[in-house]
Amino acid sequence: MASHLIVGISGSISSGSYNTKLLRAFGELVPSDVEFRLLEGLDTLPFYSPDLDGENLPEQARQLRETVRAADGLVVASPEYNYSYTALAKNAIDWLSRPYGSHPLVGKAVAVIGASQGLLGTVRAQLHLRDVFHATQSDVLARPEVFVTQAASKFNAEGHLVDAPTRELLASLVDAFMDHSGRQETAQVA
Amino acid sequence: MASHLIVGISGSISSGSYNTKLLRAFGELVPSDVEFRLLEGLDTLPFYSPDLDGENLPEQARQLRETVRAADGLVVASPEYNYSYTALAKNAIDWLSRPYGSHPLVGKAVAVIGASQGLLGTVRAQLHLRDVFHATQSDVLARPEVFVTQAASKFNAEGHLVDAPTRELLASLVDAFMDHSGRQETAQVA
Amino acid sequence: MASHLIVGISGSISSGSYNTKLLRAFGELVPSDVEFRLLEGLDTLPFYSPDLDGENLPEQARQLRETVRAADGLVVASPEYNYSYTALAKNAIDWLSRPYGSHPLVGKAVAVIGASQGLLGTVRAQLHLRDVFHATQSDVLARPEVFVTQAASKFNAEGHLVDAPTRELLASLVDAFMDHSGRQETAQVA
Amino acid sequence: MASHLIVGISGSISSGSYNTKLLRAFGELVPSDVEFRLLEGLDTLPFYSPDLDGENLPEQARQLRETVRAADGLVVASPEYNYSYTALAKNAIDWLSRPYGSHPLVGKAVAVIGASQGLLGTVRAQLHLRDVFHATQSDVLARPEVFVTQAASKFNAEGHLVDAPTRELLASLVDAFMDHSGRQETAQVA
Repeated sequence: MASHLIVGISGSISSGSYNTKLLRAFGELVPSDVEFRLLEGLDTLPFYSPDLDGENLPEQARQLRETVRAADGLVVASPEYNYSYTALAKNAIDWLSRPYGSHPLVGKAVAVIGASQGLLGTVRAQLHLRDVFHATQSDVLARPEVFVTQAASKFNAEGHLVDAPTRELLASLVDAFMDHSGRQETAQVA
Repeated sequence: MASHLIVGISGSISSGSYNTKLLRAFGELVPSDVEFRLLEGLDTLPFYSPDLDGENLPEQARQLRETVRAADGLVVASPEYNYSYTALAKNAIDWLSRPYGSHPLVGKAVAVIGASQGLLGTVRAQLHLRDVFHATQSDVLARPEVFVTQAASKFNAEGHLVDAPTRELLASLVDAFMDHSGRQETAQVA
Repeated sequence: MASHLIVGISGSISSGSYNTKLLRAFGELVPSDVEFRLLEGLDTLPFYSPDLDGENLPEQARQLRETVRAADGLVVASPEYNYSYTALAKNAIDWLSRPYGSHPLVGKAVAVIGASQGLLGTVRAQLHLRDVFHATQSDVLARPEVFVTQAASKFNAEGHLVDAPTRELLASLVDAFMDHSGRQETAQVA
Repeated sequence: MASHLIVGISGSISSGSYNTKLLRAFGELVPSDVEFRLLEGLDTLPFYSPDLDGENLPEQARQLRETVRAADGLVVASPEYNYSYTALAKNAIDWLSRPYGSHPLVGKAVAVIGASQGLLGTVRAQLHLRDVFHATQSDVLARPEVFVTQAASKFNAEGHLVDAPTRELLASLVDAFMDHSGRQETAQVA
């Protein structure tokens, strides 16, 4: 039974999203006693509004907070739109970041990764996300950084990450993140 | 008849949003031959996805693009959530930023303003928005900057901006933005 | 005898620098067994260049690295020039950030604070500094944040921080930073 | 005789600096009636301090301001140190950004480019520089963006930019910048 839970947020609901595929590859690399769960349905969350946060809290937002509170770590992979993260990613994070000071992201181990079809691998989106996770007082992993570039050449037709150097880099991130999020054993590198 | 159109995007749908109120105050200060229109219904836009952008383009997104393309300028006021703009604001901007290179924001005159209940007046959200509008190749007004702090003390119960120094600052921004967006006469300072 | 060393970097050499005064106030608030040392002479360091880093390493740079390596924590207070930190602050940090991966800032406890004569208290400079300290893999304190605004009204003619709420905020930061940098007792609030 | 002057700031004084080489390549690509001048001696400017800015203004700083004021445009290429620009680049810019509101950078046409030995081509340094040039109210060229990656493979032993696609990209930036800085004819692409 898994004694350790890592959850993932993809900033894209696109059927072909390389960021979702990257998170699935992350999930394949965690040790056998760690559960990785990709958070689903984020596109049906309403836009965060203080009017909805209180007695009117949507059940979906309540569950999201509970799931992330129970997790040992959170991994975010977002496409870069206009030099920043997506609205989808930010909306989930904003729902998670209340109430102020006691929300599920305070002190939470977080890793920020990303993939793009271009040459920069979401580096600018990741910078903005780090600003956001500084605001939430989360504990963001510093290294390694994962910028998967020219993603079309690194995943196969079934959506698996098949580029060996990228897989190794991701495995080293998984390894570092297991330490960072409180699970001390070595990750399994495929 | 208005010969000049400025549109506004509020990053909040909250009933008491100071940013929406700030945009309304902006609208009251434009010259008489300028129309100001607050874009409505942004919270019913789906999250941007490339899967929806093409033959499946939602009619609402198509209209949003058309409206902003026809406008002489765009003003954005977003709450600051977690040191950045809101998902609602970013989602509208992302819909507006396609197709690459020929979208409605290329070369568009843009002003970024904001109001908060705290002491920083959304300065960090505005920095992120400027990064975004650099990506969209928009023409962002540099000065004056409008950081409305402690907003509860500056709007009255009916939602009107009543703080005189803030009104003057906003009027000077309106004045500068009329120039910036191609309308050369002096704005009316109430 | 002090068993714990905190060093401070001021981004200004101006005689009247509020950031230097803020660091001195920090030093007055540390517990009695903690030594606080303001790093001197940073304006006589040459601009960092890889040509100087190696056999030609300036003695001053070597000593700077050694001092910071021995410290339990680093506090930086920089004026905001043009929405960012000063060259003086960055130059010291760049000298400290080599060699890659084993330099004195890796894992170092860092606090970023600041004072300005305006209303924003160096918030934008602090954002850039956090990006920099993410690069250096330092461990930046998340809260409280210290943005000392309208500094002229908060320090007296002798340069002492006399504004009570600001002193309390700074004391709470000192307290949090003692924990963060490995010294667990409570800071003395004057 | 040149009727148009573009000045360049390199963020590095290293003998082998790819950013300096990139600026020289820029200079080779400007039309024949445009003079390109790389600003020299920036490493002997003192660190900016308000104490030196006034009656004690260093002659070198005065001349720097005069040169840039007379120029039609400014190109900056800085190494990326710790996810940001260099102290050398920032110090020159800070000297240029006074007095507030009437300094040589207000409204100045600016291009930000960069080269690195890694895979990101100074993208993060360029983001910080854009924040800085927003503060200075400069008019930063939006496109094309020039991130020269793996620079060692793109310059020859004599320091010339020999990679053809990079030369073309740089030529298109020169072309766009000639327009942006007020010189309307087409740049000569070698």
